[in-house]
Amino acid sequence: MVEKPLFNRLALVGIGLIGSSVARIARARGDLAAEIVATARTQQTLDRVVELGIVDRAERDAARAVEGADCVMLCAPVGAFAELAGVIAPHLSPGSILTDVGSTKQSVIRDIGPLLPAGVHFVPAHPLAGTEYSGPDAGFAELFEGRWTLVVPPVGTDEAAVEKVAELWRRCGSMVERMEPGHHDKVLAIVSHLPHLIAFTICGTADDLADESRSEVLRFAATGFRDFTRIAASDPTMWRDVFLNNREALLEMLSRFMEDAQAMARAVRWGDAGYIEDKVQRGRKIRRSLIELKQA
Amino acid sequence: MVEKPLFNRLALVGIGLIGSSVARIARARGDLAAEIVATARTQQTLDRVVELGIVDRAERDAARAVEGADCVMLCAPVGAFAELAGVIAPHLSPGSILTDVGSTKQSVIRDIGPLLPAGVHFVPAHPLAGTEYSGPDAGFAELFEGRWTLVVPPVGTDEAAVEKVAELWRRCGSMVERMEPGHHDKVLAIVSHLPHLIAFTICGTADDLADESRSEVLRFAATGFRDFTRIAASDPTMWRDVFLNNREALLEMLSRFMEDAQAMARAVRWGDAGYIEDKVQRGRKIRRSLIELKQA
Repeated sequence: MVEKPLFNRLALVGIGLIGSSVARIARARGDLAAEIVATARTQQTLDRVVELGIVDRAERDAARAVEGADCVMLCAPVGAFAELAGVIAPHLSPGSILTDVGSTKQSVIRDIGPLLPAGVHFVPAHPLAGTEYSGPDAGFAELFEGRWTLVVPPVGTDEAAVEKVAELWRRCGSMVERMEPGHHDKVLAIVSHLPHLIAFTICGTADDLADESRSEVLRFAATGFRDFTRIAASDPTMWRDVFLNNREALLEMLSRFMEDAQAMARAVRWGDAGYIEDKVQRGRKIRRSLIELKQA
Repeated sequence: MVEKPLFNRLALVGIGLIGSSVARIARARGDLAAEIVATARTQQTLDRVVELGIVDRAERDAARAVEGADCVMLCAPVGAFAELAGVIAPHLSPGSILTDVGSTKQSVIRDIGPLLPAGVHFVPAHPLAGTEYSGPDAGFAELFEGRWTLVVPPVGTDEAAVEKVAELWRRCGSMVERMEPGHHDKVLAIVSHLPHLIAFTICGTADDLADESRSEVLRFAATGFRDFTRIAASDPTMWRDVFLNNREALLEMLSRFMEDAQAMARAVRWGDAGYIEDKVQRGRKIRRSLIELKQA
């Protein structure tokens, strides 16, 4: 017999890669939620979710989907959160938990916090997991195994609610750590958002080359470029929203990176071998640290 | 019985990742060279190569190593080529082939071409293969399988010699394509040299963060940053030399990339969602093309 479910009814608002993975886990384990309800932006997604048989109920109307749920999880792109919160807020049950899986956290607190009725516990979270694929078919039950989930509650959030969200992610196979919202956005800007911005940019730079060179870029991509394109294949709406909702931290990290790239360009132009070697050595050092931390 | 060896004596000048892989293949196949001689910058490397048993003769003196060889392959960092060529040129046999595996080709032709005695065939080449590891222990016989080798002869090179070098790489498991030196350097600047420069740079940017953030960058690297560090772990001397010897094409591609990154920064700052989405879509398109070309 499985442990008592954490929640009676889990409502997933949005059910793409992340939401459908949570649904699959909840189905498989039985100790996450007694009932799983899903809502999505398109009927097509809902139809597919029903076909996949990974939820108990698919609900076209977001307000109806969250009614009676003791845990509501927003799994849509963060740019849609303000509008979604406006729709669902009046229908959230007192004492219920509202959480999310968005990649930016200050914006989520800014967009959702003011709309919530008293008595609803708001516990933003961010599972650091994903693939280059999206949609309900892309999800799988092992997605969060061995990966971090950051739980990022605003000051004053009910500790029991925070712990329930942390426990949900532990049951999903995740390691959990708590983080302050502003710090989350800064760390994610450098480890995730900036690398993605760079990857999208260099793909565009290559795509702008004359036709002959471009076709050769594709043929000979194995020599470095390929590693950049893998992360450039991610969901466009999600990433547009991430960039626009972590603007300040992203621009700060991009600005530091650009200064460093200009310094590297100068070293290449003027033949400053020592400077270049030092930077390459630091790259190796960082890589070695990752290997020691088993993150590589 | 194996086919008649392509060469009587193959001399490897430098025997790290690439050179030792060629030696292992030559040993295993028997149809590359009847005899394999290696020379290296340090006695330590040569001792190790003897221990590994992957060459017939290890020779401390580069001039003696190339004497009597009908194929000499430079497998050292490209920055060492001018000096090496000065040492070995007087000892190359008439009718022999001098080739190399360097990542830049105009610089190699500039540095070596003028030093060669008449009757020596100079056939620069570049196997697009490698790992983040270096040294004679890092090599393995499958390194070139299914990978491209670009053969990049200067105008007027003897066609029979070009074909012999192409055949050597085919026997190493490589697909071979011919390319013009200037074009090679431009294509490699975008597919390989720029991605590496960016990877080294972003590692430095992360390493410059305050201690607390830096340790979190390492812990949460799995979200994008990690993919950049993999290629940042490569050999420092090799990459310093590549950057300095493909200066013009690299600075041109870096400059294009920086313009594009600035445009992206501007779109993020001013909330130009359409611009960002377009760039992300192009990243996906490039990735899909790679998958279709089986390069991903």
